[in-house]
Amino acid sequence: MMIERYYWSINDVISSEAMLLAVEAQMHTLVAEVDDEAVTQLFVTLKGGKRLRAKLVLKIAGMTPQSVLLAAIVELIHAASLLHDDVIDEATLRRGVASVNATEGSKRAIMLGDILYSKAFSALTGFESAIAKCVADAVTALSKGEMQDVLMAQRFNDDADAYLRMLYLKTASLIEAAARSSALLVGKAAEPYALYGKNLGLSFQIIDDILDVVSDEVTLGKPALSDYAEGKCTLPYIYLYEALDEEQKKRLHALHGQTPSASDALWIKQEMLSYSAIERAYTFAAQLSNEAKEAVDDPTLHQVLDAMMERRF
Amino acid sequence: MMIERYYWSINDVISSEAMLLAVEAQMHTLVAEVDDEAVTQLFVTLKGGKRLRAKLVLKIAGMTPQSVLLAAIVELIHAASLLHDDVIDEATLRRGVASVNATEGSKRAIMLGDILYSKAFSALTGFESAIAKCVADAVTALSKGEMQDVLMAQRFNDDADAYLRMLYLKTASLIEAAARSSALLVGKAAEPYALYGKNLGLSFQIIDDILDVVSDEVTLGKPALSDYAEGKCTLPYIYLYEALDEEQKKRLHALHGQTPSASDALWIKQEMLSYSAIERAYTFAAQLSNEAKEAVDDPTLHQVLDAMMERRF
Repeated sequence: MMIERYYWSINDVISSEAMLLAVEAQMHTLVAEVDDEAVTQLFVTLKGGKRLRAKLVLKIAGMTPQSVLLAAIVELIHAASLLHDDVIDEATLRRGVASVNATEGSKRAIMLGDILYSKAFSALTGFESAIAKCVADAVTALSKGEMQDVLMAQRFNDDADAYLRMLYLKTASLIEAAARSSALLVGKAAEPYALYGKNLGLSFQIIDDILDVVSDEVTLGKPALSDYAEGKCTLPYIYLYEALDEEQKKRLHALHGQTPSASDALWIKQEMLSYSAIERAYTFAAQLSNEAKEAVDDPTLHQVLDAMMERRF
Repeated sequence: MMIERYYWSINDVISSEAMLLAVEAQMHTLVAEVDDEAVTQLFVTLKGGKRLRAKLVLKIAGMTPQSVLLAAIVELIHAASLLHDDVIDEATLRRGVASVNATEGSKRAIMLGDILYSKAFSALTGFESAIAKCVADAVTALSKGEMQDVLMAQRFNDDADAYLRMLYLKTASLIEAAARSSALLVGKAAEPYALYGKNLGLSFQIIDDILDVVSDEVTLGKPALSDYAEGKCTLPYIYLYEALDEEQKKRLHALHGQTPSASDALWIKQEMLSYSAIERAYTFAAQLSNEAKEAVDDPTLHQVLDAMMERRF
C-alpha cells in the first residue's frame, strides 16, 4: 500500500499543469514543422481550453515522449474539429473569445483545421497501427457526429437515444480514443479504459448541455440557452418535453430554433426545475460517471470524473 | 525483349477503365463503412474526374487488393481536398456540374470533406508506416498549398518561383505521394517515381493554367480566364508580365482580380500569343515532363505524360 501511495504522490508532484506544458510545447513543435509562418501565427491565437483529452492520455499512459506526442496529436485533432465546427455552426465565440472564423474568416478556419488534422495524422503514423487506427476512426466518428448534429438541429427531436448516439460520435468518440490509445501505448487492457473515456465524454457533454440551461453568458463564454435556439434538443429539453402536458409541449416546440424572449427563457428554466429535467439529466450523467469508475480502478481517473461532474463552466 | 513486350500487353489487356472500376468500388466500400445514409447519398453525387492519381498508383504498383485500396485512399483524399477548395474558393462549378457547396451548402461540403479525409486516414493505418506517412504528409502539404494559394491571390504576384512552390504543395505533392507510396508498396526505388509524380503534377497544373487562358467555357466546364479574375497569377500571366512594357504592365496589373471585359479578355489572349507567354509556359511544362521520363524508364508512364501534355481539357 505504501508503494502504491508513493507512486500516486509522484504523479501528484508532476502537476497536471506542468505536464500540460510539455504537451503544449509538443503541439507547437508539430505546427512549426508545417513550416508556414501564416499557419504558426494563426495557431498561436487559439485558446487552449481544458485539455481534457491530453490530461487523460498523460494520466493513463504516464509522462513519456511518446505519451506527450499522443496527447499533442489528440489535442490538435480536437482543435481542428472545433475550427470546423465553428465554421459549420457559424459560432462567433469560442472559449469566451472571438472564434477564428469570426476574426479571420471561414476560409482560414477551414484551412487551418485541415492542416492541423493532416499534421496530426502524419505524426500518428509513427505509432503502431492499432493506436493510429483507433484515433483515425474517432475522427471519422466525430465528423459524422457533427453532420448528424447539424441535420438533427434542423427539426425538433425528442428521441433521447438518437441524441445520445450523436453525442457519442461528436464528443465521446475522441475521448474514448484518447483513453483507448493511451492504454494500448503502455500495454494496459484497452476496453475498460475505452469505456471510461466514452462515459467521461458522454457525461462531460451532458453536463455542458445542462450548463447551457443553468449558467449565465459570462460564465459560459457564449449566450445562455443558445443550444435550443440553435436547434439543438439536448437531454434536458428532451426530458422536459416528455414531462410537459400537450399545451406546454406546443409552447416548447414553438420555441425550437428561436432566440427566446426573456419571459420564454424564464419559463424554460422554471419548467426545467419544476419537472426535474435538469435533475434527471444530471442523474443520467452521474450513472455514466459511476459506470466509468467501476470500469477503471484508478483514484486519479475517478477524481477527473468527480471534477467534471462538479464543474460550473 | 519479347518478355517485356508481353508484360506490357498484359497491362494493356486490363484496360485503365476496367482497373478504375475496382478503385471506384473500393471507394464506395470505404464510404459505406462510414455507415451514414446522408454521407453515402452525398458521396454518390460527386463526379469522379480523370482519376489521374488512381491510374498512377495502379500503373506503378500493378493491380492487387492493396494497390486498389491505396488508389482509393488517394482519390478519397483528392475528393476531400476539392470539396474544401470549392468552399474556400467559393466555386460554383466542378467538372462541369454544380459543386457540392453550391447545391448542398458549404457546411455539408466541409463535413463530407472531413469524413472522406478521416476515412482515408483510417484505411491508411493498414499500410506500413513509410507509406502512410508519405500520404499523410502530402495532405499537410496540399492544405498548406491551398492556404498559400488563397493568400497569394490577394495581391498581384510576378514571382515564378513562389508560384511554383505553391503549385508543388497544392497540386503536385499528392501526385508525388501517390507515385512514391505505390513504388514503396511493391519495393521499387521510391525516389525516381516520386520525381516522376512531382513533375507530372507540376506540368499537369501548368497545362491546366494554360487551358484556362486558351480554352472556352464549354470545354473547361468553368468560365475561361477565371484564374486571373480570381486573383491567381498563373505562369502564363507571370511570363507575360515579364515581357510587357511599363504601360502594358500597368494595364495587366489593373485587370488582376477583375472579371475582364470582352475587349480586355481579347487583349490578354492576344498579348499572351504575341509575347509567347503560353509557349514559354508550355515549354517549361514539357521540360518537367521530359525530366520525369528520364527518371522512370516505363513506356506506360511515358504515355501518361504525353497524353497529359496533349490534352485539351
